[in-house]
Amino acid sequence: MKNIVTIGGGTGTSQILRGLKWNQDIDIVSIVTVTDDGGSSGILREDFNILPPGDIRNNILALAEQETFLTKLLKYRFNEGFLKNHNLGNIILLALTRINGNNFPLAIKTLSEALKIKGRVFPASLDSLKLVAELDDGEIIFGETSIVLKNKNIKRIWLDGNAEAFDESVMAIQKADIIIFGPGSLYTSIIPNILVDGIRNAINLCKAKKLYIANIMTQPGETTNYSLKDHVEELENYLGEELDYIIANKSNLPYEIIQRYQKMGSSPVKLDMEEDRRVVVSDLVYIINDEEPKIRHDPKKTSELILKCVL
Amino acid sequence: MKNIVTIGGGTGTSQILRGLKWNQDIDIVSIVTVTDDGGSSGILREDFNILPPGDIRNNILALAEQETFLTKLLKYRFNEGFLKNHNLGNIILLALTRINGNNFPLAIKTLSEALKIKGRVFPASLDSLKLVAELDDGEIIFGETSIVLKNKNIKRIWLDGNAEAFDESVMAIQKADIIIFGPGSLYTSIIPNILVDGIRNAINLCKAKKLYIANIMTQPGETTNYSLKDHVEELENYLGEELDYIIANKSNLPYEIIQRYQKMGSSPVKLDMEEDRRVVVSDLVYIINDEEPKIRHDPKKTSELILKCVL
Repeated sequence: MKNIVTIGGGTGTSQILRGLKWNQDIDIVSIVTVTDDGGSSGILREDFNILPPGDIRNNILALAEQETFLTKLLKYRFNEGFLKNHNLGNIILLALTRINGNNFPLAIKTLSEALKIKGRVFPASLDSLKLVAELDDGEIIFGETSIVLKNKNIKRIWLDGNAEAFDESVMAIQKADIIIFGPGSLYTSIIPNILVDGIRNAINLCKAKKLYIANIMTQPGETTNYSLKDHVEELENYLGEELDYIIANKSNLPYEIIQRYQKMGSSPVKLDMEEDRRVVVSDLVYIINDEEPKIRHDPKKTSELILKCVL
Repeated sequence: MKNIVTIGGGTGTSQILRGLKWNQDIDIVSIVTVTDDGGSSGILREDFNILPPGDIRNNILALAEQETFLTKLLKYRFNEGFLKNHNLGNIILLALTRINGNNFPLAIKTLSEALKIKGRVFPASLDSLKLVAELDDGEIIFGETSIVLKNKNIKRIWLDGNAEAFDESVMAIQKADIIIFGPGSLYTSIIPNILVDGIRNAINLCKAKKLYIANIMTQPGETTNYSLKDHVEELENYLGEELDYIIANKSNLPYEIIQRYQKMGSSPVKLDMEEDRRVVVSDLVYIINDEEPKIRHDPKKTSELILKCVL
């Protein structure tokens, strides 16, 4: 049995978890960032003084074995009235937090058990954390959403105030054989976890192989024009050590989708590290056929490649 | 197998269902009024144009076989933020209505199946209904909550606009061996069902024994000073026919509880029909040891007495 820890939280991590959960020989812990202050999570965080539930919910859903009555409820998003844009899963996690005496990890555990999920989901910290960024022009911005909305290059990023790592997250890292960073928003999903000292220290001290799954597309407001090397160097900079493996996509994307992404300021991440022996490339793309097709990591292809690298 | 239909909706009916559900030889259908316009139900009804979910939720919960993860969620009521006073169960029923293509009965069915409830719960009508009352002083009041808040004697009550009976409710009545009215708010839980022509006609045409379970206490704003006879005559007046059995409480209530109820304008319903051979009296009281003790019907005692009367 291998212990795998994912560090992230957003949609990218969910895709990887969806692939990994089918392997019977691994135990999964998903460590999720708690700096989100936008959307439904942001409002609930503000109004009810809880940790942002959105990424936690998505990761729990990604690890759920099957579609049930409860998974349908957890995914539902209201589009009207005073509940507009709120996700029912977030509201349920809020209620479970209260039902469990304001114990957020216990609320996550209760929900995870009700869904019989494979693995566990932990917040990086139980402290209410706010991300702060210094932009290239010297401006200091508070809050994840505001940082991304500025749509400017980020010089450095840190946490406002002290953050204590969640014990069980630290223990999971200590036991890990493999730690997976990404895919996901570099500054708002991955690095915020490392900004928690206890998390970074545990990663630095453990013997796990460290693996980065690079994004397929750059993210406007975060990594505009970042090449693969830019991503990796920035992550290693915050991590304070080198990664063992770097997995990146190498495949042609449909022209019309690239065009649409480019209109939003997003383009394919340029591969500029192919001489580096740690880099493994493959076709990892999965196109979600939503109303507007979206580019994602293919859970099966990506998880197979991860396991091939490290097992 | 006997088919029992309850006509009501509020807390009173829930208590009876809690007792009846353990009997393996009966099939239960709970028909619930849809004129509620107060509290969480009222806001959701107004803001999302759905039928009031509160009584439906309570009746589903009363028929649930056991306490589960889901029943805990359905009972939770928020006490802060923009969700203040809203019940999570109501919000879940709203989401299920949307998930099921705005089909409210299908939402109820989905939830009932997820909870593996004994029996079925149907709304009396799928039309959005508003109760209207003429008070003793001639004033006309629209809306259930406003009527009760006036705290004056009600002369007569009717529905604003046309109401079509829900087909499955009508069919349940046609098949019924026993129809149980009450306990519950006379004008806002029981009679509103009978105001739907199709429901009253079905009741009048069916061969079921009709049984009324009288309230233990009068209700301020509805039945202040009503004796048992006042309740029965009013119900029979709207029903257009006589009841077969009348079950009433005969027991001494704790003095301090009576005192507290009296401060709110509520007193024990006076027994003034004991010469009527249809009347069956017994000790039916169950005291809920909440922060402030409340008087309820004992589910076991009451359901045993019902079955003794009619089986």
